[in-house]
Amino acid sequence: MNFASDNGGPVPTQVLEALTRANEGYAPGYGSDALTAKVADQIRTLFEAPQAAVYLVGLGTAANALALATLVQPYQTVFCTPDAHIHMDECNAPEFYTGGAKLTLVPGGDVMTPQALRAAIAGEENRGVHGPQRGAVSLTNVTEGGNVYALDQLGALCDVAKAYDLPVHLDGARFANACVALGCTPAQMTWKLGVDVVVFGGTKNGLMGVEAVVFFDPKHAWEFELRRKRGAQLYSKHRYLAAQMEAYLEGNFWHDLASRANASGTRLRAGLEALGLEVVNDTQANMVFFRAPLRVHRAVMGKGAVYHFWGTEDVPEDEPVTARLVCDWSLGDQSVDDFLKLMGQAL
Amino acid sequence: MNFASDNGGPVPTQVLEALTRANEGYAPGYGSDALTAKVADQIRTLFEAPQAAVYLVGLGTAANALALATLVQPYQTVFCTPDAHIHMDECNAPEFYTGGAKLTLVPGGDVMTPQALRAAIAGEENRGVHGPQRGAVSLTNVTEGGNVYALDQLGALCDVAKAYDLPVHLDGARFANACVALGCTPAQMTWKLGVDVVVFGGTKNGLMGVEAVVFFDPKHAWEFELRRKRGAQLYSKHRYLAAQMEAYLEGNFWHDLASRANASGTRLRAGLEALGLEVVNDTQANMVFFRAPLRVHRAVMGKGAVYHFWGTEDVPEDEPVTARLVCDWSLGDQSVDDFLKLMGQAL
Amino acid sequence: MNFASDNGGPVPTQVLEALTRANEGYAPGYGSDALTAKVADQIRTLFEAPQAAVYLVGLGTAANALALATLVQPYQTVFCTPDAHIHMDECNAPEFYTGGAKLTLVPGGDVMTPQALRAAIAGEENRGVHGPQRGAVSLTNVTEGGNVYALDQLGALCDVAKAYDLPVHLDGARFANACVALGCTPAQMTWKLGVDVVVFGGTKNGLMGVEAVVFFDPKHAWEFELRRKRGAQLYSKHRYLAAQMEAYLEGNFWHDLASRANASGTRLRAGLEALGLEVVNDTQANMVFFRAPLRVHRAVMGKGAVYHFWGTEDVPEDEPVTARLVCDWSLGDQSVDDFLKLMGQAL
Amino acid sequence: MNFASDNGGPVPTQVLEALTRANEGYAPGYGSDALTAKVADQIRTLFEAPQAAVYLVGLGTAANALALATLVQPYQTVFCTPDAHIHMDECNAPEFYTGGAKLTLVPGGDVMTPQALRAAIAGEENRGVHGPQRGAVSLTNVTEGGNVYALDQLGALCDVAKAYDLPVHLDGARFANACVALGCTPAQMTWKLGVDVVVFGGTKNGLMGVEAVVFFDPKHAWEFELRRKRGAQLYSKHRYLAAQMEAYLEGNFWHDLASRANASGTRLRAGLEALGLEVVNDTQANMVFFRAPLRVHRAVMGKGAVYHFWGTEDVPEDEPVTARLVCDWSLGDQSVDDFLKLMGQAL
Repeated sequence: MNFASDNGGPVPTQVLEALTRANEGYAPGYGSDALTAKVADQIRTLFEAPQAAVYLVGLGTAANALALATLVQPYQTVFCTPDAHIHMDECNAPEFYTGGAKLTLVPGGDVMTPQALRAAIAGEENRGVHGPQRGAVSLTNVTEGGNVYALDQLGALCDVAKAYDLPVHLDGARFANACVALGCTPAQMTWKLGVDVVVFGGTKNGLMGVEAVVFFDPKHAWEFELRRKRGAQLYSKHRYLAAQMEAYLEGNFWHDLASRANASGTRLRAGLEALGLEVVNDTQANMVFFRAPLRVHRAVMGKGAVYHFWGTEDVPEDEPVTARLVCDWSLGDQSVDDFLKLMGQAL
Repeated sequence: MNFASDNGGPVPTQVLEALTRANEGYAPGYGSDALTAKVADQIRTLFEAPQAAVYLVGLGTAANALALATLVQPYQTVFCTPDAHIHMDECNAPEFYTGGAKLTLVPGGDVMTPQALRAAIAGEENRGVHGPQRGAVSLTNVTEGGNVYALDQLGALCDVAKAYDLPVHLDGARFANACVALGCTPAQMTWKLGVDVVVFGGTKNGLMGVEAVVFFDPKHAWEFELRRKRGAQLYSKHRYLAAQMEAYLEGNFWHDLASRANASGTRLRAGLEALGLEVVNDTQANMVFFRAPLRVHRAVMGKGAVYHFWGTEDVPEDEPVTARLVCDWSLGDQSVDDFLKLMGQAL
Repeated sequence: MNFASDNGGPVPTQVLEALTRANEGYAPGYGSDALTAKVADQIRTLFEAPQAAVYLVGLGTAANALALATLVQPYQTVFCTPDAHIHMDECNAPEFYTGGAKLTLVPGGDVMTPQALRAAIAGEENRGVHGPQRGAVSLTNVTEGGNVYALDQLGALCDVAKAYDLPVHLDGARFANACVALGCTPAQMTWKLGVDVVVFGGTKNGLMGVEAVVFFDPKHAWEFELRRKRGAQLYSKHRYLAAQMEAYLEGNFWHDLASRANASGTRLRAGLEALGLEVVNDTQANMVFFRAPLRVHRAVMGKGAVYHFWGTEDVPEDEPVTARLVCDWSLGDQSVDDFLKLMGQAL
Repeated sequence: MNFASDNGGPVPTQVLEALTRANEGYAPGYGSDALTAKVADQIRTLFEAPQAAVYLVGLGTAANALALATLVQPYQTVFCTPDAHIHMDECNAPEFYTGGAKLTLVPGGDVMTPQALRAAIAGEENRGVHGPQRGAVSLTNVTEGGNVYALDQLGALCDVAKAYDLPVHLDGARFANACVALGCTPAQMTWKLGVDVVVFGGTKNGLMGVEAVVFFDPKHAWEFELRRKRGAQLYSKHRYLAAQMEAYLEGNFWHDLASRANASGTRLRAGLEALGLEVVNDTQANMVFFRAPLRVHRAVMGKGAVYHFWGTEDVPEDEPVTARLVCDWSLGDQSVDDFLKLMGQAL
């Protein structure tokens, strides 16, 4: 009954098997091995983007920070939500990698609206050299708050960015879960809408630690390679990143893994609602944010359920508190049902 | 016959087995798992340093750059050799992570002498606020040029640093090979001489990608943790770094692996000298730099030997050219002997 | 009738005379001249802070950015208002000088409340290494919006900062105007309340370009000196900065200049209110923000009045638009009266 | 008898007069005043470069660092001599402003040769992403060591840079002295040879603190303006920088001032040589490096001569020590002769 994060579960055996297969003999270092070339090609095919520049790095923060640093100058600003991972959970890594660019928080919480984005971008005008220049728009799907932008919503945000000639970065830490939720292809959620660079996340969806950074315009390739090296993200034994990605791509395994996680999310939501509890986010994917009295949370946590409060827990025992449940690919129906049973008993 | 690098070979099966063992159920993220705590303890024991702050990162460049950034202010300088990895092969990562500190190159090539270090440090005096301030001394053992500092040589360099109250960083990408060559303990090569932070390298010695950063004074702990996160080096699924390190430490496996690599180096050197070829470095460890006519190199490369020239290869066919041979743990006697046989035939 | 800014007017002849006096013979460079030492002493006396470290720089942005960089680490954040000059008008200079620290905008507009500050600081807790660490609180008096914090208001904000053990930076671009408005001493507005570093601004109050950075705890002195040099703010011919400051301090000339500017502000406000116009800020100092129909603004601007709109001007002719009037020391009653007469005619 | 630096003397009265003239009424801020536009035009005319982008800043370090930051990416390196001001005397400002680029020191001391430059640039090749990329070549005329590159020497260095498609930065802190020494025009020493950006220095040649940064290709203009603002070098009361430059340009006053300084240098050199002393640099301009017994230096210093040793002074009394004499525009024959007389007596 572990709902703490989608980075807590094991990796599928297919990943271990791929590592074992890749572990044969000698391979050239620093990404010049054949397996790296193969998975880059596969990703280009998956995204229907034959010209794309594709790179593997080991962490989502690195992927986001390097992608933004390639697009944004130090005297510019990145538009994102106040809940964005790049703002909340990367300890100033975007500011570090960009050399001191700013993040402009578009008002409105976890889900950005085109109106709010347009107003925020417009608000940075007219100050000439005094304010930061507009640099890029950064979006996230699935969002940090467990919501899924529909394709037309994402497209509308990209349209605003394009109206100001700004590049769009898509943080895809849970890209696969969003694809499954939307029933769309990777291309449909990215370049077809105007996304310029996407982080195709693997780590939260079953890999040990691999994210693919995909630039649809290859003009950014060489600069990214230099920034990746300087940013200490060019792995010498690169085949072990590539091997994980190979397993991830094989037979659309990434899609299968996310489908499992999303199914757990759906089952969880239905169960909580059946118990009369309030679910506060759009739970198409693998995260459920719900409210229950603090004493209920305490009771189920005391019996082994693992998850985090979201916001303050400093309230009386009978007051409702919001909590976050995240389903990873390995969770399974039994864990969900066990948890729901505990919740029912505690209520 | 692959002598191109010690990042080209496979990892031992023990590493894969450790990954498989670690892949059970849920584990808390970001380094708060039990396995990470266990290997940190083991490293403290190995280094006889019960107070040390120990961190795992995925790449040597990250380990060096983060360690230096924790010790050195942006208005300071780091003393190193002109051949140091931090200067030559990290695409300005130390400058990036320190926020723009300088590297002062101590004259004299791959091996630093106490005299040259003292002169270089003294040379940065008397300019007050105009020049960079003295920040740290960075040493490497085994050096990039395949030489091994004896303990008294390292100690003499540390003494110079201490005379100026400067901290000492030891790049230990091939720390294990140096330990084996010197027949010393990790403590003897580090804090007992005055080293303040060491990178205990695993990647070049058989791991997929793990380096331990060991600060002997734990006062640096929290700052390092923040810089690691900001530097995009805090892995969410940290247990897979820890598992590799677990295998590395088990029964001093790290020592065993380096012993194999060094033995290949010794065998290689003896064979080359028996062929009348000039070996130009101190080959106690796993690297041999030797000179042979260009046509000879071309001949053995044409028959499948893989290695790099060191310096220019733009000479007539009969002129001698320096090349570098690196032996990884997996190389084995047969590869060495096959290569020596080819060399003999080509001469 | 120039109300565009307090950087538009001439400097008093006393400043030119001081430059002429200082221009005798040779003087040692880089701040080691006698005049620099003298004015630093005078500032220590003025602030009743005999231990303070005092430095002159040529621009307010440099003063703010260097002061913050000395107090704040790159993995931390600075709490300020959304209207703060450091956020709005320095093109990411604070992010640059701090090496990528963040600015956390305390909700609520131009004037910060202790409640909002406390909530913002508290909001950055509990994320451990994932979010930026709390670095400093930055306040401004007179604010960018022309408001003046009373001493107890400033003190309450400092108290919140101190409750979290955070240093306080006071942007005093219009410090003199605030002192005059509050009828307080420099000490009363700074260290007596808990301010750790203040920018004692001269440029907006009649100097060509000099700001004094005053650290009340001299432990920051040497680091500031190095950051100032590295930040390209250590003037070689430092006596010409010191000379301006000498004129500024002589007979509390700084206080006299600000009194003149504030008096113009008061006269302006009274006149606008007498005309039935809405003044939207607390006009104790030298800035007046008022609302009038767009066509009225256009009319008086067409007759020579110079000032800026504040916010959008993209409205119908009869709609009210906010504008900013800034009075510099040299403005004089006649200009104010001429402007008010024009406004009366246009209404 | 002050030979300590060319930043120690007074400014000509023409500069004070220009400040007084400029101090009339209101002027728009941040460089949008008429006087700034006028002097920028005059500089374009002076350099025969009608398209050039021209900016004023207050310090040479700022001018150099901002110019380099505009030309060089953080993953690149700048080629300069080991004695260059940007390396020796700017406390890592170039590393700071470029976001962590490296300086590659071209071997050979104060004067760079085309051969050494070519070798250094070539030496950074073949490491692909591992080493820094080639960014720019930075030259200085007059050099820090008081030498003057002839036009063909400078041109040969530019040719090497151009062969590698690298931009050339010319640190012209003593640009005027070099022009006088060479009898050439500003255009002849800059864009006609291939210089891309020059710092046309005023501070060491009689101004209080103004340097003009001249980009011959205006494509760099907007980026420079943003970096200047972010680098805290955009002065609000810009007319006072412009006024100084106006005086400097009037009737080629800059040339006249440098001619005086150079004449003092020539007189000094002749006198020292007549006394049998060794002059160690090419003294066409305003600096003389000479050797005399330590006791002689001590004697003349004891009688009021002010200058610096260059290198160690930690030798026996009778050993020769190198010292630097710098002549500023205001020095005059009498000071030179007084000094020579003292030297003669002490010998």
